[in-house]
Amino acid sequence: MIYIDRTCKETLYMQIYHQIKTDILQGSLKEGDLLQGSRGLANTLHVSRNTVDAAYGQLYAEGYIFPKKGIGYVVASLPKLTLSTSLETIENVKATHNNLLPPKQELPILYDLTNGSHSNDLFPKTLWKKATIECIEKLDSEQKLAKIIDKQGELYLRHTLLSYLKRIRGIHCTEDQIIITCGIQQSLEYICKLLANDKSYVFMEEPGYHKATAVFLNNNLKIQTVPVDEHGLMVSRLPANKEHCILYTTPSHQFPTGVTMPIHRRLELLSWAKENHSYILEDDFDSELRYYAKPIPSLQSIDMNDRVIYLGTFSKALSPTIRMGYMILPHKLLSRYNQIFQDYNATVPILNQYVVSHLIETGEYDRHVRRMNHVFRQRLECFEREFKNISSNLKLSSNGSGQYFLLEFSTSVSQDILIKKAAEQGVKVYSTMQFWQEKTDCPPNTLFLGFSKIDIKNIEDCVSRLKKAWSEWL
Amino acid sequence: MIYIDRTCKETLYMQIYHQIKTDILQGSLKEGDLLQGSRGLANTLHVSRNTVDAAYGQLYAEGYIFPKKGIGYVVASLPKLTLSTSLETIENVKATHNNLLPPKQELPILYDLTNGSHSNDLFPKTLWKKATIECIEKLDSEQKLAKIIDKQGELYLRHTLLSYLKRIRGIHCTEDQIIITCGIQQSLEYICKLLANDKSYVFMEEPGYHKATAVFLNNNLKIQTVPVDEHGLMVSRLPANKEHCILYTTPSHQFPTGVTMPIHRRLELLSWAKENHSYILEDDFDSELRYYAKPIPSLQSIDMNDRVIYLGTFSKALSPTIRMGYMILPHKLLSRYNQIFQDYNATVPILNQYVVSHLIETGEYDRHVRRMNHVFRQRLECFEREFKNISSNLKLSSNGSGQYFLLEFSTSVSQDILIKKAAEQGVKVYSTMQFWQEKTDCPPNTLFLGFSKIDIKNIEDCVSRLKKAWSEWL
Repeated sequence: MIYIDRTCKETLYMQIYHQIKTDILQGSLKEGDLLQGSRGLANTLHVSRNTVDAAYGQLYAEGYIFPKKGIGYVVASLPKLTLSTSLETIENVKATHNNLLPPKQELPILYDLTNGSHSNDLFPKTLWKKATIECIEKLDSEQKLAKIIDKQGELYLRHTLLSYLKRIRGIHCTEDQIIITCGIQQSLEYICKLLANDKSYVFMEEPGYHKATAVFLNNNLKIQTVPVDEHGLMVSRLPANKEHCILYTTPSHQFPTGVTMPIHRRLELLSWAKENHSYILEDDFDSELRYYAKPIPSLQSIDMNDRVIYLGTFSKALSPTIRMGYMILPHKLLSRYNQIFQDYNATVPILNQYVVSHLIETGEYDRHVRRMNHVFRQRLECFEREFKNISSNLKLSSNGSGQYFLLEFSTSVSQDILIKKAAEQGVKVYSTMQFWQEKTDCPPNTLFLGFSKIDIKNIEDCVSRLKKAWSEWL
Repeated sequence: MIYIDRTCKETLYMQIYHQIKTDILQGSLKEGDLLQGSRGLANTLHVSRNTVDAAYGQLYAEGYIFPKKGIGYVVASLPKLTLSTSLETIENVKATHNNLLPPKQELPILYDLTNGSHSNDLFPKTLWKKATIECIEKLDSEQKLAKIIDKQGELYLRHTLLSYLKRIRGIHCTEDQIIITCGIQQSLEYICKLLANDKSYVFMEEPGYHKATAVFLNNNLKIQTVPVDEHGLMVSRLPANKEHCILYTTPSHQFPTGVTMPIHRRLELLSWAKENHSYILEDDFDSELRYYAKPIPSLQSIDMNDRVIYLGTFSKALSPTIRMGYMILPHKLLSRYNQIFQDYNATVPILNQYVVSHLIETGEYDRHVRRMNHVFRQRLECFEREFKNISSNLKLSSNGSGQYFLLEFSTSVSQDILIKKAAEQGVKVYSTMQFWQEKTDCPPNTLFLGFSKIDIKNIEDCVSRLKKAWSEWL
């Protein structure tokens, strides 16, 4: 018996459809049962015949019923199935999952000295809006609003990016070597597929960038760590007889120690890569943000042997929310790239690619980077001033660039306690433990503090809270 | 000898920096050589002392020189290195690469019956602009313009998407099961990392979606094909004793045959997955585009055993240029997802996520989908009409949905010849060969024709050109 509810929001034909479907699934309508003719049912229900036809059409499209010539619609044969839910199981899993979530933050955090996020006002909102409108029109006139896009990224962006990188980072390459990705991790995913096999391993700086490590591990690469000194990755500790390896490094601003690899070490590293037929992944993540000297030319710019894969991102100078980065492949990897990714789609929306290209082309990007440098330099100097006055037991390490610094206590104290005490005063600071593969090698009394999210007017208060929190060890 | 050119665009300090650096790299300044004092050099060059200090500071930052107490700057020790270029090699590789590029298109293509791209006018340009402006303001007020974003995608989008999918596709899940990705391929990359190990293999429909195959192969999965009949993937051909497998399927609109899997087959498939502890990847890529019946409820909506991973995309209903899709994980995979991707970043820009969410929330997305359905239905019907009149030797297969159809010749002729002849008349049609793992099983006389990019007013001319091209076989 079908019941029609005219006050219900559901259309009449869907009501009929649902009730017949339920009858079939619950077994009250069985295989071979004949449905009432559509004219008859329409009369019974006081609906139009089209309504019943639509319901029957849908049931037929889904395979619940089929038309029998000269008779009408008949219920199809369905396999006997326990569709009995395992709902309790689902609930159990849900409960377990909820237990895995971090406990609720009990104390209000006033200042989060995190890494990566910026204060909201640093996003070039007006520029972005204006560029978006212009680029939608440009894409429209080029008939590109709905066309499958180049897997490597749009030539317009690769072209302006190339001239920018030549100028700023000394990059030498052609547009066909540039691949636009949705960030460093996506670039690393591609590289793992390009270079790695089951037996591959990768050399990582210790300490190093944990988000790169995550990608390598998820691609079944073995990680071998290389220590870092005041000149960055210690090339002398690399084995000489390991061929066809991958080495990941942050030479211009080692993450997280902040040191810069000087030219002699860079040349040694390139020499090692050449002799060992290995590739260097140069992550140049924040090279535009240097406050006292110009950015140091990239490894890629002095590599003459096609051994460097250059990785960049717009997350630091623009915003982490735009999810855009790039990699530059050596020429000799291009044919392999084109072969193994031939059926792949691009990962970055065309409009966003055009907006960034437009900002670079018009010089707005340069102006924005200068503004960011000004803001970040002021924040860093403010932190340096404030911490200087506190105690000689505290050492702030920064190389005058980027968006973070390390804070080292000469007194004996553990990170956990320092973090907890700071949180009690409303300041969130971070452990350096996550950057170490060998956790026991991590200095227990060094913290990671980012200054990209805190407003300069709050730094004084923030540091005085930290002073209060840590008075015991100062 | 340093030479200053005041007419040159380069700043004075960069001129000094570059000349000293070149001297060091070329060996005319050697290890231990003392640089002239900055005051003296400034006097010699008639520049300010700050200018020389800036140049020396940069050279120091890069490790070319270092300060010796009481003496001044001294040239650092650099390893002897042949930086001799292998430029010829690079040129050779370049030449080889260029040879790999497809030959230039000799004939002008008037109508490209491709898959995936839409005609430019189908992009909701005005809506997108308006929504972008509104969403930038919304993000600004929520202080989210420059903050690291949720790796799963923004809750705002997951929330509106969830209610949309419940309504349209019968999806049952919670927001925490939804992961926003930059497309189906990105979803599959995640799934490979979630489910696969070295011994894993994946069941694929034959013929099937080649872009999914590409991802599985790049993740070292073994492909085992399963034939497709008029009800889609033939569940009876699946082995019963294979545990913990992955099965990829397009049940609502099999790619490329176009058939729909009816309910009895769906239930069989779910039963197989349950018994074999295997996962079904349900690619529901164009389920919104159905022209005669409502979309068929998804497999996910009738799965009660947490065996279906649902995959969707905005490429078909909105545009392939926005690079946005999603997957819905079963509850029991969530803790593993959170564990192995805990250090991963999101892949889709926050602004684009907000724009799509805004379109769904305001009902604009529904209205847009209806417009797309209207346009595509008209195009499909126009093709059907035009081809019907041509010859009984041609069979057009479509299930009244999507953006493509297959064209089968009952006469004996090869795809290559048909494609070549069509191109000579300015129409690009496609082979079905790429969808087959076992190329010899591909019917030689079936072509793939997409109607998402051609304007309806051109279809008559397009078909009359094809008639001319293929007259021999009609």
